[in-house]
Amino acid sequence: MKLSARNVLQGRVVEVHKGQTTAHVRLEIGPGVIVTASITNEAVDDLALKEGDTASAVVKATDVMIGK
Amino acid sequence: MKLSARNVLQGRVVEVHKGQTTAHVRLEIGPGVIVTASITNEAVDDLALKEGDTASAVVKATDVMIGK
Amino acid sequence: MKLSARNVLQGRVVEVHKGQTTAHVRLEIGPGVIVTASITNEAVDDLALKEGDTASAVVKATDVMIGK
Amino acid sequence: MKLSARNVLQGRVVEVHKGQTTAHVRLEIGPGVIVTASITNEAVDDLALKEGDTASAVVKATDVMIGK
Amino acid sequence: MKLSARNVLQGRVVEVHKGQTTAHVRLEIGPGVIVTASITNEAVDDLALKEGDTASAVVKATDVMIGK
Amino acid sequence: MKLSARNVLQGRVVEVHKGQTTAHVRLEIGPGVIVTASITNEAVDDLALKEGDTASAVVKATDVMIGK
Repeated sequence: MKLSARNVLQGRVVEVHKGQTTAHVRLEIGPGVIVTASITNEAVDDLALKEGDTASAVVKATDVMIGK
Repeated sequence: MKLSARNVLQGRVVEVHKGQTTAHVRLEIGPGVIVTASITNEAVDDLALKEGDTASAVVKATDVMIGK
Repeated sequence: MKLSARNVLQGRVVEVHKGQTTAHVRLEIGPGVIVTASITNEAVDDLALKEGDTASAVVKATDVMIGK
Repeated sequence: MKLSARNVLQGRVVEVHKGQTTAHVRLEIGPGVIVTASITNEAVDDLALKEGDTASAVVKATDVMIGK
Repeated sequence: MKLSARNVLQGRVVEVHKGQTTAHVRLEIGPGVIVTASITNEAVDDLALKEGDTASAVVKATDVMIGK
Repeated sequence: MKLSARNVLQGRVVEVHKGQTTAHVRLEIGPGVIVTASITNEAVDDLALKEGDTASAVVKATDVMIGK
């Protein structure tokens, strides 16, 4: 399935931290460049996410702000 | 002002494309790694955004999905 | 690519309406049940979206509110 | 109060799962079609949400991606 | 319909500016405190939004960042 | 860093409530006008957020709905 989301940033999972319903997943998408995602625990299980996995951070263009 | 948003990805503006109310701004955050933001035309003017500027893509963790 | 987004609602494209930068795409996901997406024109071209296509509305759980 | 959000999908609450601050609520909006929402525990209490309730999944058009 | 969104900020419409698909609506929610919303033109028509109307800015808690 | 987000509402922190991964932070932005943000625990620590702090609620225009 191809997505309309404009941003698909490939990287490597460096951390998966589960709470009671929400998990934080960190991806290294470049040398020292870390992206943090907040997703459901169910999604972590569904994708069997674990440290070392190749995965992508997917972000819709409308969810990206610019800072200058 | 420091932000709660977990993702601040620095890069260089490579394109600013304005529509009637909404603009698309592309940032190169790494060699060949482009992030697209959809922001208001007013924000483009307010930040005086133009090609070549150093700027950051700012994304809240809850707006990041993971694909695997 | 499998996504962490919890909501993938399959349907049929019933309308694609492009503005200058932003397009509205309507999907019928059930008898008379229409979902509207606001995506970039570039995404419409990239996915070659047109009326009659089978496609899915993809929504992150954190972007769903409940009304009662 | 009428909302600008374009997507109001009516259904029946099939599950309410609370964490420490965030709850996941699942709605059946059609035969076997489940939508998951991630909302605050406070909202669950405020709306007195429970299994069997008639409720709607409300989603802004800008939060809907298309997959094809 | 009561909403799970935690933020419903009442105010007065001070500007409605339509593009080709997307409109910007500004609401004064307090003396000199303006909130800008980016919604679809269809929503503007659907709610018959015009200057002077009493209306509310509705925002999900997950879409609010904190700056300090 | 100046942000493209159109809504920066200054106020005073009146509550910080941490869950296992997600925290709710309430800001009083006007007499009796409370805004609730759902951010990561890490962001709370990073900004050293505590009751009484002056802080701002930051919201992108695309994340604001209108109710009438």
